[in-house]
Amino acid sequence: MKILRCGCWLMASVIVPNPGRAQSNLMPQPARVTPGQGRLKVDSSFRVALTGYTEPRLEHAAQRLIRHLERTTGLILSTELAPTASPATLVIATSAASAPVQKLGEDESYELVVTPAQARLAAPNPLGALRGMETFLQLVEADRDSFAAPAVRIDDRPRFPWRGLMMDVSRHWLPVEVVKRNLDAMAAVKMNVLHWHLSDDQGFRVECRRYPKLHEMGSDGHYYTHEQVREVIDYARERGIRVVPEFDMPGHATSWFVGYPELASAPGPYTIERKWGIFDPAMDPTRDEVYRFLDSFIGEMAALFPDEYFHIGGDEVNGKQWSASPRIQNFMREHGIRGNEALQTYFSSHVQPIVAGHGKKVIGWDEILAPGLPKESVVQSWRRQKSLAEAARLGHMGILSAGYYLDLMYSAASHYAADPMEKESASLNDQEKARILGGESCMWAEYATPENVDMRIWPRNVAIAERLWSPQDTKDVASMYQRLAAVSRELDLLGTPHKVEHRRMLERLAGQHPIAPLAVLSDVLEPVKEYAREEGHEYTQFTPLNRLVDATLPESDVARDFSHLVDGALAGGAEGQASRQEVRRWLVRWQSNDAAIERLLESSFLLREAIPLSQDLSALASAGLEALDNLANGRKPPPAWVTGKHALLDNAAKARAELLLMIVPPVQKLVDAAASQ
Amino acid sequence: MKILRCGCWLMASVIVPNPGRAQSNLMPQPARVTPGQGRLKVDSSFRVALTGYTEPRLEHAAQRLIRHLERTTGLILSTELAPTASPATLVIATSAASAPVQKLGEDESYELVVTPAQARLAAPNPLGALRGMETFLQLVEADRDSFAAPAVRIDDRPRFPWRGLMMDVSRHWLPVEVVKRNLDAMAAVKMNVLHWHLSDDQGFRVECRRYPKLHEMGSDGHYYTHEQVREVIDYARERGIRVVPEFDMPGHATSWFVGYPELASAPGPYTIERKWGIFDPAMDPTRDEVYRFLDSFIGEMAALFPDEYFHIGGDEVNGKQWSASPRIQNFMREHGIRGNEALQTYFSSHVQPIVAGHGKKVIGWDEILAPGLPKESVVQSWRRQKSLAEAARLGHMGILSAGYYLDLMYSAASHYAADPMEKESASLNDQEKARILGGESCMWAEYATPENVDMRIWPRNVAIAERLWSPQDTKDVASMYQRLAAVSRELDLLGTPHKVEHRRMLERLAGQHPIAPLAVLSDVLEPVKEYAREEGHEYTQFTPLNRLVDATLPESDVARDFSHLVDGALAGGAEGQASRQEVRRWLVRWQSNDAAIERLLESSFLLREAIPLSQDLSALASAGLEALDNLANGRKPPPAWVTGKHALLDNAAKARAELLLMIVPPVQKLVDAAASQ
Repeated sequence: MKILRCGCWLMASVIVPNPGRAQSNLMPQPARVTPGQGRLKVDSSFRVALTGYTEPRLEHAAQRLIRHLERTTGLILSTELAPTASPATLVIATSAASAPVQKLGEDESYELVVTPAQARLAAPNPLGALRGMETFLQLVEADRDSFAAPAVRIDDRPRFPWRGLMMDVSRHWLPVEVVKRNLDAMAAVKMNVLHWHLSDDQGFRVECRRYPKLHEMGSDGHYYTHEQVREVIDYARERGIRVVPEFDMPGHATSWFVGYPELASAPGPYTIERKWGIFDPAMDPTRDEVYRFLDSFIGEMAALFPDEYFHIGGDEVNGKQWSASPRIQNFMREHGIRGNEALQTYFSSHVQPIVAGHGKKVIGWDEILAPGLPKESVVQSWRRQKSLAEAARLGHMGILSAGYYLDLMYSAASHYAADPMEKESASLNDQEKARILGGESCMWAEYATPENVDMRIWPRNVAIAERLWSPQDTKDVASMYQRLAAVSRELDLLGTPHKVEHRRMLERLAGQHPIAPLAVLSDVLEPVKEYAREEGHEYTQFTPLNRLVDATLPESDVARDFSHLVDGALAGGAEGQASRQEVRRWLVRWQSNDAAIERLLESSFLLREAIPLSQDLSALASAGLEALDNLANGRKPPPAWVTGKHALLDNAAKARAELLLMIVPPVQKLVDAAASQ
Repeated sequence: MKILRCGCWLMASVIVPNPGRAQSNLMPQPARVTPGQGRLKVDSSFRVALTGYTEPRLEHAAQRLIRHLERTTGLILSTELAPTASPATLVIATSAASAPVQKLGEDESYELVVTPAQARLAAPNPLGALRGMETFLQLVEADRDSFAAPAVRIDDRPRFPWRGLMMDVSRHWLPVEVVKRNLDAMAAVKMNVLHWHLSDDQGFRVECRRYPKLHEMGSDGHYYTHEQVREVIDYARERGIRVVPEFDMPGHATSWFVGYPELASAPGPYTIERKWGIFDPAMDPTRDEVYRFLDSFIGEMAALFPDEYFHIGGDEVNGKQWSASPRIQNFMREHGIRGNEALQTYFSSHVQPIVAGHGKKVIGWDEILAPGLPKESVVQSWRRQKSLAEAARLGHMGILSAGYYLDLMYSAASHYAADPMEKESASLNDQEKARILGGESCMWAEYATPENVDMRIWPRNVAIAERLWSPQDTKDVASMYQRLAAVSRELDLLGTPHKVEHRRMLERLAGQHPIAPLAVLSDVLEPVKEYAREEGHEYTQFTPLNRLVDATLPESDVARDFSHLVDGALAGGAEGQASRQEVRRWLVRWQSNDAAIERLLESSFLLREAIPLSQDLSALASAGLEALDNLANGRKPPPAWVTGKHALLDNAAKARAELLLMIVPPVQKLVDAAASQ
């Protein structure tokens, strides 16, 4: 395994403790940053030169860099490359080619030296050059005189070789352009694997020429043609991103059975599953025809997808169809297979050689970890670091996804805190640690559509990208959030619609009413966490995702900032005084917001469910203001006031309309501080 | 001429005086609206059926309608069409085909009847069906119970058959996707001609196979291939839009001469013109080779562009090259040609038969109107209604562009007030009036790039679209602005980036600072009008258009609303009291804005020029607040105060950074009211 041979990314963890203003926008944080003197001016004369090894991919990347720079500056630039290094602002020197098909563990390092005269980017291969170009782009900023990049020397390489994003295109269909724009964003933050979750109970999303009923009957017409798949793979390769396809089996496969019920463990007919959850249908591990089908199917897909890895899923088989089938039970008894887990291992052990037979290595979810799993396989841990460590001890490679589920609506900070090398992994020896290849964020699409999938992924995913690229001790959460805001702006200019669609969805809800008070409300809300949306609301694939919860961002920046302000205000002192004033300004704004939004909320069937949230926001603001007054006057409020406010807070903390009011904890602090004077 | 035969659109001007709430979002206003009882619910079961004549264009349009409805509602719909009328929510009945190439004057009428049970759209041909589908989309809104369209009967047809937008792609290049998204927006407001200004001094933008040096040397590589031209024409036809190409001659043609200097009236060499204005180079009208070249060139382009009209420009020839050439002067003497205007007429009279020889009719700017102009030609008036009327009297057809120049940064209301049938045209007889075909808005691109061209065109262009479609007496400006806001939201959801790019450009200027106070400033600004940007700043094609003036919208909604508020406040009474409070709230906000934005403006070389504007905004707000206080107390301010405020107002009224502070007049009113108590 190439990875084991060159575990160099594990040693390169050098971070400048105080990177200072010059590097304020860099994310992921590079391995080593050495500030220089002066600045390199960037104006209309900006030119790029390619020296050393070159290929069309590098030329395209240089032209993309120029267009990207046009977007982030508004300069009008020529995309013609400079013929030699001398007139160029940025010289890119590449030593040699990358592998014809991007491989796990290829060198992605680069060295970028910016002086007031020129920027020079050197990389051993195009992959490193691509990464370094993104870093250069993040350096350019407007200052008092011009656009400029600060003089700096950057030596950079990733901590982990596998830094992926999984996109589920089965539960809700995501057209090619959505995938492409996410590849653009991934490239901007140096992610290098698109894990394409192409089949599940709710949809089979690739044209299959050998078994056309897969896409014809399992997709509602929403599938990628072979040509489109190749287009996406080419697009990804241009950006230094591998594409790993997943065909989930033996469970999560209802959509296959619509056209081919004979693959299932119970007789059909089957229809595409429209609900969310874990369902009974599973492939029949006992029948040779199933493996013959899979052999032929995997053969076609292995030829279509050039990556060396092939994801066979393997998660969440409930075994009910197996238990209910006397024939399968009989088979298990005959073959000494004890229990459904063992039956799944039996299935895996038959599929793995098929995959290998088509020249691919297997990757699968936690559940594939079982005796007999080939050593070259990769285990994707969706449960905890525990299974990652277990796999590593057993000699398997692994990537972490637990802690990186973007659809669960947790904060960037919480994802940032999840580290493949911590918890159970921390006790591994060096050889075992080297088997931990990185991680993947996961965007399961029960509640995501082309409208809001980008705001579910970005910008939080950048925190995960940094966790997987930057040295392990890159952990300053305040710095992370500051740089996250900068990258979020960069992605917005690049065309990622996470900000735009948030606003458009709010505008749509507001209709002819002004959007501002609705935005004020949405800004302090977050969607409920984990799988709480499934409680009390029956969702299907056709349920419109057009409510306030669908338009609201996963993480409330306003509530986080307000919470810090409250902490500052309660800390006292002169700074505390300024914070108190700021806290008061927010509270005053929220107090009057319900009156500003009342008519709108009443007028739309989509917004009426938000009325209690809006009322509570105003009530919380009033409570906060009263607490502030009490604190200012040194007056202890009467016990009845405290009881009343606690009742309000308890009620306001409850989810309504699948949304949470995120200023409850800081207001609680104000109330408690007033009460405990 | 087909137009003269069926001048029916002139008679159909019936408007419902008070269309009421139900039609609040319709723009352009239909010819006749009859409200009904009840509402047609629109939910996930929404289906469309096509009956009568059908063709792929209608199927595509129905599918676009469904996707558009998904965007404006967030519903998840099936794009499969209903096989028969019975299960459909919207039934579209089309009688017969349109012309194979869309012709001027084709019937665009439709009838749309919405009942609580179903919506039925009937049209004589696909063009009418396309128009009616846009109307249906504008009817659907969220109310207290669901999405719904109000019951209504609409009989609609355009007032004018030529309703165009001219896009200049020469001065700044606009890629295919920019043209396409503008075709989408045009279709949404029933415009039917894209006038594509494809060549000018600053760029020749179409691949020419017979004379490849035209695009190779005259375009910096920014040109449309034949394939792309066909793609745009197909895209336009799908939306019921004609594409009229313009190749400007004999002036505005420097870019031709870079590759073919022999066409010019003075020896070369020539380079692409990089500045704005009127330049000396002009084609040589005296040489047969020029006409042979044009014959061959026009032959190629006439085959590429199927429309029956071919625009030969003809504007702004300064004649300096002609006057300076002894050979040309000699030729004029020999042929009895007196003066440069006559020489241009000589040129036109030679080009017109060439165009006709390739099966096309000529359209040109004002200047082509001269004796000998064929009757079937169309004169595009960029000067005034006067030349339109003149042309009509002489038996020529004409369209109005004077009053519709979007690049001059005037208000939607001012464009709305320009009517092809008013001023000099009003005195024409009916036969002459029938020769006035409509109008075209013009988007000259000196100060427009792909980033901001959409916000220069939209939403103001919708007011022009209504002027050209709706009955002549559709003139309520307040209603226009209210509906304009609704269409602007519709276009935003459709993908027109006029709002998004405005915000993105402001965000880019703000960088790491909060955008809000910069938006507050930009919201009360407008770019200078007419050609004032050319004074005092040397622009070229490469000058970045990334300043505050480039990000600021052409029309300040806030200043207009504020002005109305001030009028209300000064009118007195109980309503006046409410307006006074609202006026005060705005002033208080503006007063403190400079402090909030000071650091940002200081920190960026791009924003420093806006410091005086920001300071003046705060000073104006203070003056307004003082005036309000004086008014409230019935106190006449001392003369020195009045003098001081007038000095402030005079200064604040001046353009700075190519921007105007639009709240000067209403603040002046407050100051004057206080002074004259």
